[in-house]
Amino acid sequence: MSRDICVCQDFLAPEHRAQIEAAAASVGMTPHFFTESQFEEARACLQNCEVLYCQFPRLVREAPATLKWFCSSSAGVDYYCTDPTVFKNPDCMLTNSNCYGVTISEHLIMVTLMLFRRMPEYQAFVRAQDWGHPLPVRSIRGGEFTILGTGDIGTSYARHLRAMGASKITGLNRSGKAKDPVYDEVVPISDLDKVLPGTQVLMMALPSTPETVGILSQERIALLPKDAYVLNVGRGTAVDQDALVEALNSEAIAGAAIDVTVPEPLPADHPLWTAKNLILTPHISGNMTLGYTRDTNVDMFCADLKNYADGKPLKNLVDRKRGY
Amino acid sequence: MSRDICVCQDFLAPEHRAQIEAAAASVGMTPHFFTESQFEEARACLQNCEVLYCQFPRLVREAPATLKWFCSSSAGVDYYCTDPTVFKNPDCMLTNSNCYGVTISEHLIMVTLMLFRRMPEYQAFVRAQDWGHPLPVRSIRGGEFTILGTGDIGTSYARHLRAMGASKITGLNRSGKAKDPVYDEVVPISDLDKVLPGTQVLMMALPSTPETVGILSQERIALLPKDAYVLNVGRGTAVDQDALVEALNSEAIAGAAIDVTVPEPLPADHPLWTAKNLILTPHISGNMTLGYTRDTNVDMFCADLKNYADGKPLKNLVDRKRGY
Repeated sequence: MSRDICVCQDFLAPEHRAQIEAAAASVGMTPHFFTESQFEEARACLQNCEVLYCQFPRLVREAPATLKWFCSSSAGVDYYCTDPTVFKNPDCMLTNSNCYGVTISEHLIMVTLMLFRRMPEYQAFVRAQDWGHPLPVRSIRGGEFTILGTGDIGTSYARHLRAMGASKITGLNRSGKAKDPVYDEVVPISDLDKVLPGTQVLMMALPSTPETVGILSQERIALLPKDAYVLNVGRGTAVDQDALVEALNSEAIAGAAIDVTVPEPLPADHPLWTAKNLILTPHISGNMTLGYTRDTNVDMFCADLKNYADGKPLKNLVDRKRGY
Repeated sequence: MSRDICVCQDFLAPEHRAQIEAAAASVGMTPHFFTESQFEEARACLQNCEVLYCQFPRLVREAPATLKWFCSSSAGVDYYCTDPTVFKNPDCMLTNSNCYGVTISEHLIMVTLMLFRRMPEYQAFVRAQDWGHPLPVRSIRGGEFTILGTGDIGTSYARHLRAMGASKITGLNRSGKAKDPVYDEVVPISDLDKVLPGTQVLMMALPSTPETVGILSQERIALLPKDAYVLNVGRGTAVDQDALVEALNSEAIAGAAIDVTVPEPLPADHPLWTAKNLILTPHISGNMTLGYTRDTNVDMFCADLKNYADGKPLKNLVDRKRGY
């Protein structure tokens, strides 16, 4: 059996490579490094590797039936769970990298405050070189928040909100069980329709699974009060985009911040580009642009490499049937 | 001696009036309520009042020599300290209202994250209906911050930064003495030139006094490193605006967020409107637009009204010579 590791990443600094080399050496393995532009070389090397660490689906598809473990440096791994043809080895272990809570929760605090403090309107004044006039604002202090998806991202956001004085934080997840004391209450996602009419801010950080596609439907958007804000950093598929645009432009809700869309990139003239009170960002909340994210990503891979070599359970193992 | 109070405020809700009426009644005084549009009626009433609670300088100028106490609902009261002709009573007590820490510190966290996360650039992409490309970002977690002015606003901001994982917070004030454990160190403002070369984020929340006018001069802007950000929510007079615009447009610093300018409103075609990587807001960080601010403003006035009637020191008394 080969003891080789194929690493195909564009974000690695020399110190990251050294860290991976040391971790691999300590368990008698050898990493081979490539960037996405070296696809052919990576593909050839991968045929003799039992471990793959990358973020490029087309390379995963080239893995041999002897691949034992694929570590995705992304958090969302729906692509690898929904298509049974991705892995030639049906038992290939899949891990993901939930290291985006720091960067995404800072994005979420930023857009929450931008919506509360009417920045879409103030920035329109300023672009028109108009001093404008004061607008009523809202505060995280004393605010109430509904968090759909209580994983790393939702819980990091909840902790920031709590520290800034939020008065009530409701989490929703599949089980309805609290995993962290930061939530005032956690209810099952099946109760979503009961929660939405009292929601001031709905933050969505859900993996894309058959159950979450379209979860914020036209009917559910209609359940939100007129002063509600919607934030989505999970997957664009979770939201009925046409209904959201309609709700924003008709002021049926107060605003939204959307970092994920269908498709990505958005085509020219898509109505999301110009929807009212929408803070649209081009899928930037949780990429590799923050040093902490890159460092933690490598840390997580190296820790699980030790587990893998020792025959222990992988800490970040994904249930390929469940999808996260 | 008259026991009347002139209240001229546009922000009061019926419950605020009831609260002031109850507080006044408890000390045997009578409030008279006006809005700015009732200037003549307020001016006439004021002639028989010993207390004034308002935010309109032109009404303060109309106060009689028998006015004992003027409570400004603003935090910045430089106008009332620099011009000796404002008060006919040279011993008139002046209080200000430092109740803006909550709203201004949320503004500051918002613009800090907008700068760290490259929002001026991403928003330009989105306005051009261009998906753009990922840009390196920075995080509050592990970041270092320099806070010029360690009062209510600076300290509220510092607490949020600390809770979000800032690694070092340096405060600067006149005495160089720490008033709050949130700061890693507090140094005297006279050491500013030593602090600037190592500054990543300079947040300025200074009152306007002869010592703070022009404090961020062209020479001091030149001391900042190329990756530094400047935030100002105090007074526009504290910054050499021409030098700031030049530093931004030449990328001598990484960006700025300016909520206060000289003059306000800014005239059309002023270079601040279009400076590079500048988040310009029209003096909105700390006005009366947040419910918490309005409620606390009234609470503070009512508490000091009790002190006033009891002959106790006023909690929010301003040293008119010092200016804050």
